Formats: sequence, structure tokens, C-alpha cells
Amino acid sequence: MTPLRNDRFLRALARQPVDRTPIWIMRQAGRYLPEYRATRARAGNFMALCQNPELACEVTLQPLDRFALDAAILFSDILTIPDAMGLGLSFAEGEGPRFAHPIRSKADIDRLGVLDPEAELHYVPAAVRTIREALDGRVPLIGFSGSPWTLVTYMVEGGTSKSFSRAKGLLYSDPDAAHRLLTVVADSVTAYLNAQVAAGAQALMIFDTWGGVLNPALYREFSLAYMQRIVEGLVREADGRAVPIVLFTKGGGTWLEDMAATGCDGVGLDWTTDISTARQRVGDRVALQGNLDPCTLYAPAERIRDEVAKVLAGFGSRPGHVFNLGHGIHPDIDPAHVQVLVDAVHELSTPYHTGS
Amino acid sequence: MTPLRNDRFLRALARQPVDRTPIWIMRQAGRYLPEYRATRARAGNFMALCQNPELACEVTLQPLDRFALDAAILFSDILTIPDAMGLGLSFAEGEGPRFAHPIRSKADIDRLGVLDPEAELHYVPAAVRTIREALDGRVPLIGFSGSPWTLVTYMVEGGTSKSFSRAKGLLYSDPDAAHRLLTVVADSVTAYLNAQVAAGAQALMIFDTWGGVLNPALYREFSLAYMQRIVEGLVREADGRAVPIVLFTKGGGTWLEDMAATGCDGVGLDWTTDISTARQRVGDRVALQGNLDPCTLYAPAERIRDEVAKVLAGFGSRPGHVFNLGHGIHPDIDPAHVQVLVDAVHELSTPYHTGS
Repeated sequence: MTPLRNDRFLRALARQPVDRTPIWIMRQAGRYLPEYRATRARAGNFMALCQNPELACEVTLQPLDRFALDAAILFSDILTIPDAMGLGLSFAEGEGPRFAHPIRSKADIDRLGVLDPEAELHYVPAAVRTIREALDGRVPLIGFSGSPWTLVTYMVEGGTSKSFSRAKGLLYSDPDAAHRLLTVVADSVTAYLNAQVAAGAQALMIFDTWGGVLNPALYREFSLAYMQRIVEGLVREADGRAVPIVLFTKGGGTWLEDMAATGCDGVGLDWTTDISTARQRVGDRVALQGNLDPCTLYAPAERIRDEVAKVLAGFGSRPGHVFNLGHGIHPDIDPAHVQVLVDAVHELSTPYHTGS
Repeated sequence: MTPLRNDRFLRALARQPVDRTPIWIMRQAGRYLPEYRATRARAGNFMALCQNPELACEVTLQPLDRFALDAAILFSDILTIPDAMGLGLSFAEGEGPRFAHPIRSKADIDRLGVLDPEAELHYVPAAVRTIREALDGRVPLIGFSGSPWTLVTYMVEGGTSKSFSRAKGLLYSDPDAAHRLLTVVADSVTAYLNAQVAAGAQALMIFDTWGGVLNPALYREFSLAYMQRIVEGLVREADGRAVPIVLFTKGGGTWLEDMAATGCDGVGLDWTTDISTARQRVGDRVALQGNLDPCTLYAPAERIRDEVAKVLAGFGSRPGHVFNLGHGIHPDIDPAHVQVLVDAVHELSTPYHTGS
């Protein structure tokens, strides 16, 4: 493999010194870019784009061609796993994901088996291989998955939800069945992420989009415990280099210490927690990734720079910060504002790394 | 006025001893009750129900006739204020609220004036008077409003939102205009709540449903500051008795100390914060209201009792706890499970108040 020419992102996750704070952006390959919309139109629909390694590679690289980002992230969707399990994923325009065969009974749960990603989700490792080759050492490639709990919410609800009545109802009314379901999903996620690493992913991220809808006890029992199970089952090295893993629970600001104790390398922060407070709470155990409010990018350039400066000052000068938004970039953001953001992070972070 | 026969709720908010922990339930008058659905059908639609004092009174009292609840809450909607300001509220079935004339420019903001509730929202104080008379001293009546920030999200977005791009975008791109808008809304809320007290409301609650989507700095500047402005402008006594005010920011678990410092009497907790942690953090400065996960009510009776026991044990034996869910009750909850909840709170809380 070509040697990595920009390893700021991996160094920051290893809490090693860097020359400036690395930045990548959740959903950096996405609808706010006209070139993404053009490729998606060519693909026909969103899942066709995910399932075509050449096109997935094309959109993965698009933001890197515009902005000096320090990492690429595999273009895919968190719902590939339940789709491969036979739940029948579709996306109605403007309506979010739908499963034709949601989990509605114990029999539905007992029918599920642990996924073999190379056999049943071949297009994902194939995309990783294609992207890794196309990157040719520019920046590291991040692989990812949804958290077991987050996947289970979609599998049980049949789509997005406001109250999560069915999924949370299952935790309260039949915790044993919930544990069986989460176990098979977690073991599938472990196999899926290991397949991504085998195919060339150099870092991993788990998106726990819906962990924050649980109370503290349920979060630990039904979301965090399964992310820990995955962390413990991952191959943590490839090509002689550590493969770091970042956990991100949206709305999980009160559980950062618990997340840091799983053995992960980094914890993602949404924008509702001050990064200075977060850093005090987790100390040097893990790196932190985040946490600019995505809506900051609606502001004029000067305000964006001010908000970037606040996040950088909040983290301070120790190693271990990966700059990011606190959630995915909104589709109506002007790409020129992303340019302001990336430039501001690189320029304003340099003084924090002087002498390193 | 008839003397109050059950003042547990008011005593708990005043951090005074009670014989058992009082309970009421957010959205206790609502769709989970067949008798509510029948009255609503008679009214024709949701806003017609809110605007008819006799029918609003009828649904307000329905849950009290079923369950030994310790407070009634005015049946109304948080969006009455922007509707009275001319934004044109409607509810499409299953779609949530819509404003025909959302706030989209500075001119739209400058056109708004502080509301005169008795003139422009006469049906609300009229409902309060009708309900207060019908209650005849059974339990205290809670009046309420949405927080200024929460109302502004709907006014600017034109309805519900997932990302709050427009409303948060306004805070970042034109904070001066946002402050002008929030000021006129906050002063309208103050007048509205004072009109409810004048009409007979014995306690007040402010629902900050969307404060939790802000980062800490924006929350303090654009949501909390305006709730504090309201608290400072309220009439805090009626009929020779204190009228307590409870603030509830959904997703505001990290800001409890700030909320407690506004001068309010109680802070509402959603289910994502342990009430034991919350109590340690706010000490005896305020009462706490909450915080059972609404999805607990999908569980069998024994599990509901266990979860009630955990919340009661988490708060412990000092005065100052009002039991509630951490959010509104879901429409598909079995009323028999609510009976289990209310019985459990009364029975299991008694030991914590022995000797008081």
C-alpha cells in the first residue's frame, strides 16, 4: 500500500502531536455539494449509489477535491446491515428510510443470523478497496457502522420515529428478546467493521444516533454495552498501524466517561456539550471529535471563524482533538461556508500546536 | 374561592413536607383516553377544542375522574400565542402544527406587538375560570406557556422541524433580529401567564421543548435568558398563596444549575438525567419534577412499579419532588398502565415521607 501522506487524523486519535488540528465533516460527501447531487442523479437513487463501488468512490472523493480535509469517510448508509438481513430497505423521496419487513415478533428475531459481510454485503468492502486505491495515500479512510441500538430502532420501528415507542417498548416489555436481537446485530456489526478494515479502512466510527433517547440505565444496558462488545471484537491494527475507533452517541453528553471507558480511541461530541467541559471529564483517556453546531454554517464568515475559535480554545493545546461538526452537515449549506470553516480550523489551530 | 382540599403539589414545589409524593402527568388530558377522543370528535378539531372553554374544561377534568392525580393542567396548546399574533395556526391530521404566515423577514418581526391576552386570547383565561370553578378545590390548576425560544422555532420554521435550520440560522446570522423577536414573544408570554393567574391558575409551567437543540452558549443567551425575563415579570402570588413556576427544557439535563438560578420554584427533568444526580446538582434551591421515561408505560405492571421505585429512591426523602413523566404520555398507552403508575407513586412514596 502507498504510504499515508497526511496522518494528522490518525495521530490526533492516538493523542500524538500534530502541526494543526485535523478536520473532517460528518456527511462531507453529501447533498450540499452540487457534484454529489449530479452523481446521485446518475446512480438513479440513494441505495444504487451506495451499492456501486465506483460511484461510491467518486462521491467519497468529491469533498477532498474541494477542501483540505484530513480524512475521507466511506460513502454508505448505516442501514445496509438490516437490509442485508432481509428487512427490505427503501428510501421514499423526502421521507427517510422504510423497511418492508420490520421486526415485530420473537419469531422475527429468531430468524436473524449473524451476517457474513463479504458474502452478503460484498459491495461495501468492494467500495472500501476502490476508495482506498483511489485515495492513494492522500488521507486516511474511515469505515463506519450504526450502533446496534440505533440499527435496532429502525429494524423495530420500520423507519424513523419521534417517540421510539416500539423499540423502547421492547426494552421495557421484553428485555430478553431485546438482548437477543442486539447480540445478533452487534456481532454482525463487528464482522462488518472487521471486513472494512480487511478491505483497507484505516479508522472506524460507530454512529449511535439514537442512544440519546434512552435513560441512563437503558443506555448502558442496551446501547453502550453492545458498542463495548464490538470494540472488544475488532481487529485494531492493519498494515502495522493502529486502527482507531471513535464512538459517537448523539445526545450522549452526560455519558462521556462511560463511553471513554469502553476501550475506544475517540469519543464524538454533539454541539450541546462544551468541549472544554468534555475534555475535563474524559481527561487524556480518549481523543475528542467535534463539536461545532452544524447551524453555525448558516452564519457569515466572521461568525463562523469566531465559533471555530471558541471550539479550538475550549479544547486547548493538548493533543487529541479532531475537529468536526456536532452532527452531519445540512443539505442547504453553501459550500463556500465550508471553505471558511476548513480554512479557519487550519489557520486558527496552528498556534495550539506550536512546538509540537 | 373554595379552599384547596389537596395541596400536595403546591407544598412539594415549596419544598414543604407532604404525606406522599404528588403526581401529575404531562398530557394527562389526551389521546390515550377514549373519553378525550370522544370530546375531541364532538369539538370537530383540536383548535376548536382549545377555543371552547366548556369542552376544554371537560377534557381537563377527565383524567382526574379516572386517577388520583394531584394537579390539573389547563387544556390548551403552546401555539396559541403565535396564532393570536396572526401567524395562522392549523393542524393537519397526523402532521403537526403549520403556520400559514411564518416569520421570514425583519419586517415580519417588526410587525409583531406584545399581546393583550384578555383581548386577543380571551378563550384561554375563560377556560381557566371555567376549570377553576369546576375543580371546586379538588386539586390545584396549572397554567402554562411554551418558552419564547420554543415558540420562535415554530414561528420561524412554520411548523415542526428536525434540524431547526431556519430558527438556529437566525440566531447565528442575525442575533439582533432574533433578540427583538424573542423580546416581543417573552413579554407576550409574561402577559399571557399573568392573565392565567388572574383567571385562577395556581401554578405555572413553561415548556421549553426545543431548548435542548441549542449549544450551551446559545441556550443561555436565547432560551434561558428569556425564561428568566418571564420569571421576573410574573405575579408570584394569588389568593394569599404563592404561585410557583416550573421550567422544563427537554434535553436540558446539562443546564439544570442555570435553570435553578433563574428564580423559578421547580425544574422539570426529562428521563435522560438520573434524578439522583439532578438533585445533587441543584441541591435544595428548587423542587424537581419528573422523570419517568414515558415508554416505561409499555411495560407490564411489575416493571412499571420497579421503575417508579427507582425514581423515588433516586430523589430520596427530602421534600421537593413532584412525580411526572419525563415527557408527555404517548397516545397509545393503555390507561390501565397509568392506574398502575399513579397507585405505585402514592404507595411507594409514603415511606419517604414518614414523620413529615
